[in-house]
Amino acid sequence: MAITTEPDRIDVEALRTLLDGRWAHVRRLARDTLRGELFAPVYGLDMAAHRERVARQLAALAETEIPSYGFPASVGGRDDVGASMVAFEMLVCDLSLMVKVGVQWGLFGGAVQSLGTEPHHRAYLAKIMSVELPGCFAMTETGHGSDVQRLRTTAEYDRAAEEFVVTTPDEAARKDYIGNAARDGRMAVVFAQLVTRGERHGVHALLVPIRDEAGRPLPGVRIEDCGPKAGLNGVDNGRLWFDRVRVPRAALLNRYGDVDADGTYRSPIANPNRRFFTMLGTLVRGRISVAGGANSAAKAALAIAVRYADARRQFERPGGEGPASEVPLLDYLAHQRRLLPALATSYALHFAQEELVSTLHDGWTGTPLDEHRQRELEARAAGLKAVATWHTTRTVQECREACGGAGYLAENRLPQLKADSDVYTTFEGDNTVLLQLVAKGLLTNYREEFGSLDAFGMARFAAGQFVGAVIERTAARALIDRLVGAAPGRGEEADLYDRAWQYRLLEDRERHVVEGLARRLRGAGSDPATAFAAFNDAQDHVLKAGRAHVDRVVLEAFIAAIDRCVNPDARWVLDRLCDLYVLSLVEADRAWFLEHGRLTPARAKAVTAAVNSLCRRLRPHAAALIDAFGLPDAWLAAPIALGAEVDRRRGG
Amino acid sequence: MAITTEPDRIDVEALRTLLDGRWAHVRRLARDTLRGELFAPVYGLDMAAHRERVARQLAALAETEIPSYGFPASVGGRDDVGASMVAFEMLVCDLSLMVKVGVQWGLFGGAVQSLGTEPHHRAYLAKIMSVELPGCFAMTETGHGSDVQRLRTTAEYDRAAEEFVVTTPDEAARKDYIGNAARDGRMAVVFAQLVTRGERHGVHALLVPIRDEAGRPLPGVRIEDCGPKAGLNGVDNGRLWFDRVRVPRAALLNRYGDVDADGTYRSPIANPNRRFFTMLGTLVRGRISVAGGANSAAKAALAIAVRYADARRQFERPGGEGPASEVPLLDYLAHQRRLLPALATSYALHFAQEELVSTLHDGWTGTPLDEHRQRELEARAAGLKAVATWHTTRTVQECREACGGAGYLAENRLPQLKADSDVYTTFEGDNTVLLQLVAKGLLTNYREEFGSLDAFGMARFAAGQFVGAVIERTAARALIDRLVGAAPGRGEEADLYDRAWQYRLLEDRERHVVEGLARRLRGAGSDPATAFAAFNDAQDHVLKAGRAHVDRVVLEAFIAAIDRCVNPDARWVLDRLCDLYVLSLVEADRAWFLEHGRLTPARAKAVTAAVNSLCRRLRPHAAALIDAFGLPDAWLAAPIALGAEVDRRRGG
Repeated sequence: MAITTEPDRIDVEALRTLLDGRWAHVRRLARDTLRGELFAPVYGLDMAAHRERVARQLAALAETEIPSYGFPASVGGRDDVGASMVAFEMLVCDLSLMVKVGVQWGLFGGAVQSLGTEPHHRAYLAKIMSVELPGCFAMTETGHGSDVQRLRTTAEYDRAAEEFVVTTPDEAARKDYIGNAARDGRMAVVFAQLVTRGERHGVHALLVPIRDEAGRPLPGVRIEDCGPKAGLNGVDNGRLWFDRVRVPRAALLNRYGDVDADGTYRSPIANPNRRFFTMLGTLVRGRISVAGGANSAAKAALAIAVRYADARRQFERPGGEGPASEVPLLDYLAHQRRLLPALATSYALHFAQEELVSTLHDGWTGTPLDEHRQRELEARAAGLKAVATWHTTRTVQECREACGGAGYLAENRLPQLKADSDVYTTFEGDNTVLLQLVAKGLLTNYREEFGSLDAFGMARFAAGQFVGAVIERTAARALIDRLVGAAPGRGEEADLYDRAWQYRLLEDRERHVVEGLARRLRGAGSDPATAFAAFNDAQDHVLKAGRAHVDRVVLEAFIAAIDRCVNPDARWVLDRLCDLYVLSLVEADRAWFLEHGRLTPARAKAVTAAVNSLCRRLRPHAAALIDAFGLPDAWLAAPIALGAEVDRRRGG
Repeated sequence: MAITTEPDRIDVEALRTLLDGRWAHVRRLARDTLRGELFAPVYGLDMAAHRERVARQLAALAETEIPSYGFPASVGGRDDVGASMVAFEMLVCDLSLMVKVGVQWGLFGGAVQSLGTEPHHRAYLAKIMSVELPGCFAMTETGHGSDVQRLRTTAEYDRAAEEFVVTTPDEAARKDYIGNAARDGRMAVVFAQLVTRGERHGVHALLVPIRDEAGRPLPGVRIEDCGPKAGLNGVDNGRLWFDRVRVPRAALLNRYGDVDADGTYRSPIANPNRRFFTMLGTLVRGRISVAGGANSAAKAALAIAVRYADARRQFERPGGEGPASEVPLLDYLAHQRRLLPALATSYALHFAQEELVSTLHDGWTGTPLDEHRQRELEARAAGLKAVATWHTTRTVQECREACGGAGYLAENRLPQLKADSDVYTTFEGDNTVLLQLVAKGLLTNYREEFGSLDAFGMARFAAGQFVGAVIERTAARALIDRLVGAAPGRGEEADLYDRAWQYRLLEDRERHVVEGLARRLRGAGSDPATAFAAFNDAQDHVLKAGRAHVDRVVLEAFIAAIDRCVNPDARWVLDRLCDLYVLSLVEADRAWFLEHGRLTPARAKAVTAAVNSLCRRLRPHAAALIDAFGLPDAWLAAPIALGAEVDRRRGG
């Protein structure tokens, strides 16, 4: 990209319009709705008071149009799944509320909608939207968190009574960490091994009432509070045990598997693995939502830290004297490097998120995605969830440190953002497991080459085609093809700021890492006894493949977003921000590029110099870039982000 | 080092003896003393209850010999400063207690001892040891945290009354974040600009009473609570304002500067800069203590995460069936890479800490260090503090994630360890500032070469010779010289496990980075107007120089510790652990080694393979390595580290 004239000021509104994107009206509604005392960030509440507050917030949201977005028109919803995910990500005033909303309308309501059929929808969805029926998504067990397929709760069909008997066979099988369980939930979607006529049919979900109208646990249901957590203490996580709890046959969410009155099992999907992953696949919304919510927390932290760094001064310039000659923290290169590449990454992830939400939405409301695209969507959801949540963990930490002691005070919100967002890397799929899913999906493209991929411990993940990621340009494909096709510079001669060169660098890395991994695993043979060792020895390589894929996909989304931007100054700053995003990635992994002859030592050093130079050039625009996120001051709440530092220096 | 026979089991006691080191008796005393309900880790206390509990713990410790270690025999102390620092680092049962102890006996008592003279010692130290006089160390101001020399509180001598008048001139000058101020402190060591006869003499410290016997603020003193923090809520941080508060002339801690009755100022150190840094230098204990305390938190987190990873199983081996064929998390390479290099680093930092404490102790109790060695000690304290506290922040975070949802539950202690230790990177000197101090000290060796180093914004740091780090082998110098001198392998041919090659690699990196930095700054000219820009442009280079220095010094300490180990099996595992420490460092920075022709691409890849191989070989010994830390189960407290996972799998 040619470097155009450097603007003095960036039009914040132009940037915000681009960021607000397709669901701008939902973002505006959220900004208008989440106001006043009820939605102001708070700290220092004890667990009971925090839960109470979040329950009140949830009830207030139930009065708005927000819950209707994600549900079908047949029950009074708006069939606007994209809007529901954007609304979720806007709930940054309290991440406990975000998660509570996710549990009630996303996981619980989403499971009833996606795994259930018309009678379930008619009976429950309206009450779920209104929170008349608060519910739980009871999948995770203490003994099996990541390995859902092996969970041990059973639902055995009793033909005589035409009922299922739900049982927790041992301590490892208790449902654990279940949101809404400790205090509010009346019903749970319980995932259990379905047994009928003495035969097991794998994991299915059933609706099990857990509390009566008065809030007392029902007979046979034991409920325990998980107790205080690092954060998210406004969410009432609990544990559930079922002692031969009976539910009617109709309690089975029977879209993908049903049991006749006589106990005959039937399913539209014959292969049990494929059935399992199809069922899980319908829950992809949760992972996408978490990625977006995590990035919201990163944006809020960056907004606080950048504003503080812009106002806070420390140490005088040589030759200066007096407070005015003290240097704002954001003028220091080290401080810029802490915050600005992270800011660029939050922009990149924002655009990738918007694109993923759009793809899901279009498949949901228009022409359904074919199986290939559906698997690709699931892979991207898994990958983006991992990358976005790790970005958030690192960024909020960096922001806390960048604000020094002020960042450690509860009133400045960073402690709560850190504590609350910390578990995003774990829930809805542990990141390490998710990146392996992405990589295994990428490897399915090589299956013909080495036949027995299943031996490599991948049967449960990849063989069922749970994830089928591809090394293929998809986001704005025509745009990327044109970009790469038209570019003249190659290798050493290409400008570091040449977007085509940048893109090819990431694309080439992805292909090389995945191909190398495929060769490596193929070379290891297919004996199950040695397969685990071979796969495990390559685990760092596996994770790298997943990561490389996500990086490239995110860059595509950033490029496509810039292409949509019509304001020249906003476009200029986005171009620099995209440079910073991709060159920071290249810098962080430049050892790989050096090891594989993709960068010479001189060029690798030039990448570092370019990152420094971009930090300097973007520094004057940092505050505008933050403002464009459109996070109301009331949501940031931190005095250090709202003028306290400036006032103090003025003697206020 | 030749790879000797791989032992089946490691003698934990042999390792612990080595780790317990010179002050083993203090570590044993702490393990015996910090027992029972009073010292058990707790969570979920509100701020008031937590402060109350920590105050009771402090009172109980005052009954032991622990407070006496750090104080002179003349007032009933034991003159064993090393013991006082080791005792501090053992207070890992609650980091709030650790910090409270640090404030009362380390900072407050230490300042009275180091900056005061005999009359102050006689009047106060016994009461400080017994906590009859709880006190504060009031240095930091809201407007000046890192830049202490520019703090704005004034202490103006009133000749007529023979008193100092202590004043907070504006909001930026209020004392902030002062431990012991919000609740318990009766007196404060207040750092202020000393003014007498209308002349300023720079920062000095005075004893200012702040509360009466009943705990009420004294006239002219305003006290505010800093309120809830991310962690350490058992410590009562507060803010102090002084409105023309009068204290007698004798309140001045007058070891390095005094005022006669007639207002004449006198000091044994003529140069005001040098005086300032000499005064700060006496407070070096605080930084060393923080480094040790931080590593204790990292060890506790690693103990919890390694034990859990050893017991927790997830996913079956291919071809297996049933719980017994599920794979312990610690068998996964990705999990090993999360925890084992961090474990190796905690060992390395432990030995570096022990050495630094010993050096300080010997200078304190025996032959005082000459100025060169004193500056070197200060540089190492600054550097080790930065590196150890960042290690802790990263490691506790990694441990939390490695324990998944269990790591997010308050009962499993990781949330508290994370929240409490998070500010260690900030207090006692922000890490970014400290690493710059180290680098600037290293540059003083090049001063002759470019004369006007002062122009590079370094006047206040380096010109006063505050820090004079040197590229010089100091820890176990003869040992290192012998090691490096005797080694045959060079360059490509050397074994990656050849300690001499490893050492030279780090030494060479340090020299190259520092020399390059010196050249770069010299080339930038000496005009003050451009000097800031030149220095700022090189800030990432500056930080790298500081870091490279610390890495090499820490490796020396590790090598010296292995040399002290007489048990062959323990020595074998320490050798591998040292390999993992240094090769992890090299791997993380292999881009630099590639860019500077120190590693070929093939060799860089071999380093990664070696790290993986070391993880595999150390995995069977991970539990023993953790046990050797000697952290009592009662301090870990986390159910997941104490058999809950094993019990659960047994159906318990």
